[in-house]
Amino acid sequence: MTGPDAATRRPGPGRAHLITGIAELVTCDGPANSTPEERLGILRDVAVVVTDGRISWLGAASDAPACDSQADLEGRCVTPGFVDSHSHLVFAGDRSAEFSARMTGVPYDGGGIGVSMAATRAASDETLRRLVAARVAEMRSQGTTTVEIKSGYGLSVLDEARSLRLAHEVTPETTFLGAHVVPPEHRGDRTAYLDLVVGEMLQACRPWARWVDVFCEPHSPYAFTAEESRRVLSAGIAAGLLPRVHGNQLGPGPGVQLAVEVGAASVDHCTYLSDADIDALAGSATVATLLPGVEFSTRSPYPDARRLLAAGVSVAIATDCNPGTCYSSSMPFMIALAVAAMRMSPAEALLAATVGGARALRRSDIGRVYVGGPADLAVLDAPNHQHLAYRAGVPLARAL
Amino acid sequence: MTGPDAATRRPGPGRAHLITGIAELVTCDGPANSTPEERLGILRDVAVVVTDGRISWLGAASDAPACDSQADLEGRCVTPGFVDSHSHLVFAGDRSAEFSARMTGVPYDGGGIGVSMAATRAASDETLRRLVAARVAEMRSQGTTTVEIKSGYGLSVLDEARSLRLAHEVTPETTFLGAHVVPPEHRGDRTAYLDLVVGEMLQACRPWARWVDVFCEPHSPYAFTAEESRRVLSAGIAAGLLPRVHGNQLGPGPGVQLAVEVGAASVDHCTYLSDADIDALAGSATVATLLPGVEFSTRSPYPDARRLLAAGVSVAIATDCNPGTCYSSSMPFMIALAVAAMRMSPAEALLAATVGGARALRRSDIGRVYVGGPADLAVLDAPNHQHLAYRAGVPLARAL
Repeated sequence: MTGPDAATRRPGPGRAHLITGIAELVTCDGPANSTPEERLGILRDVAVVVTDGRISWLGAASDAPACDSQADLEGRCVTPGFVDSHSHLVFAGDRSAEFSARMTGVPYDGGGIGVSMAATRAASDETLRRLVAARVAEMRSQGTTTVEIKSGYGLSVLDEARSLRLAHEVTPETTFLGAHVVPPEHRGDRTAYLDLVVGEMLQACRPWARWVDVFCEPHSPYAFTAEESRRVLSAGIAAGLLPRVHGNQLGPGPGVQLAVEVGAASVDHCTYLSDADIDALAGSATVATLLPGVEFSTRSPYPDARRLLAAGVSVAIATDCNPGTCYSSSMPFMIALAVAAMRMSPAEALLAATVGGARALRRSDIGRVYVGGPADLAVLDAPNHQHLAYRAGVPLARAL
Repeated sequence: MTGPDAATRRPGPGRAHLITGIAELVTCDGPANSTPEERLGILRDVAVVVTDGRISWLGAASDAPACDSQADLEGRCVTPGFVDSHSHLVFAGDRSAEFSARMTGVPYDGGGIGVSMAATRAASDETLRRLVAARVAEMRSQGTTTVEIKSGYGLSVLDEARSLRLAHEVTPETTFLGAHVVPPEHRGDRTAYLDLVVGEMLQACRPWARWVDVFCEPHSPYAFTAEESRRVLSAGIAAGLLPRVHGNQLGPGPGVQLAVEVGAASVDHCTYLSDADIDALAGSATVATLLPGVEFSTRSPYPDARRLLAAGVSVAIATDCNPGTCYSSSMPFMIALAVAAMRMSPAEALLAATVGGARALRRSDIGRVYVGGPADLAVLDAPNHQHLAYRAGVPLARAL
């Protein structure tokens, strides 16, 4: 059992599986207060043993123990599996025509969420389960080993709870986003919809959700104000959920300040930030999660990643995989965009896609490679991690 | 023999293979003087029969004949295989560190070609053959069925001829690019190098080359002036090769005018164009080949595709896959860039990646789907062609 594909065949319980031929092992577990390159914690001439889905041994290749099975990666690079901390995978329907319309001149106003909502409500559990499974498999095939999944295309008690139940079947990182937009049937009475979100909907969703999120965006008529967003987050926190926020996407706004105020793990988008926003983030434990696929797919200005990094803010990158503003599931593409379009270094981008995403999910167990940790690894068809940005668009990564 | 993978197993000589389950067949064979959408020539509810590597039947799925084998694509989209009309696949060595340096602040001056030259000269035939085969396979796995390959990292009689001989083993579209840059050992005497290029080197390369090309670029000290470029192209033409030109990449220059003057099939890059350049192209049979992966990977301004299209110029897109300025082999990524970054429509981008590339190679037999034509098809894990841009970075396409 050798060759690059053999590593994907996991051995049985208690059996040790040796992985050799690693040209560069990027642990993302270097010293915290060091340069991005040092934080990558790169090891060479090492081998890894996986037992029961965990890393049971890591050391010099020449010291590798005898194992029950073995895979030779033939000079490939291994990194932590990517942590995609922001996605919207539970939806049905096809919005490629809307995308093409936008690309050929029709302005984007966010109203298209209603299209996905209608298709999602109309889909059976079986259809949604198949769609989610296919999207998660597509992500794994590109190196992602942890994905956060939000609700937000159900927008009714039944369909939000159903979306989260189905998401929870594939990831523990599930996020209640009943406050994605005000759905069409409630546009005459926003308050009634918010009452529903913080009341019956929250109660129905709570068993399947770890997080509560809100689209805090004064520049969209169907998203939520600071006051409305605070109400949603407070109710979620009171129900035992942890807060995160969509903020500052379409223009300057209160999202970042609110996220820091409530102790959110992350505020996502961060495209338009004031000096006060940067200061607030730098003095907090809130991660700034950048979603450059959205700017790429909507031809919008990119967030100023360098300004955030210079201020010492923790930065993550994620796909935002969704049918409207970015239907890309590719973390390698986000790394390439982070480097080429947001001027991050290859090291900064890879850290943001691994330990950065983990921090945005308040997880210290994932996003890095260490003995005792989960065997969540990405294998690259390349000799080093720089190829992820150097070879933009090429499917180099896969989850082990 | 059913399922999406079965179609890749070609049946034996004379045996007919039926392909069904095609949600959308984009033939790129619609009426020439029509809108881009009409030129896509989209057919639905059709099936295709492949016999001996050619399309032997195409018609309504309900009329499909009995065949020796069958593959059900289960609702996927089929397009012509992509025609990548500009690549530099014959090289050895790794320049990812140079890429990272550029991304973190070191200006790009083009001098890095010497690094690839040294590694290419030092590599054995066997090594180069393996590298080229792996790159061509990587392209096929992303939907490319025709690739043009240039020499230009040998820059000696022996190594240019060897590069073209190896390229010719995998494609008939081989291009002599001895005039890529003046190599280090000739920088004291450019004329002596040009004498070599148009003399002994051209004679040694001619048996393996269809095309002659030159990097006509006054903004690079090691590239070639208009007069030098004209000399190279004229010599190539006299030797029976067909001309093509690298032009107008780093700033305004004479490349486009020279390409039109010599009747080149294509002038590639076209990033900086004057009104006179546009007029010359519009009145010619010379294709403007845009290489947006280069602008992406060097953080440079993109060519003005809309201006070219508005003037009626024939436009192609290609990868320019090379170790210095764009090490991407992905035509789907170029389509996504063409749409998002160059404001082409999804239809315009797909035409540029298929029939556009074919025209840039003066080929009318490829880049479209028709009875009697080669079975050069790309299958998308998507219901329609718009997903190529809509799902940027996701590996949706593969060659059938």
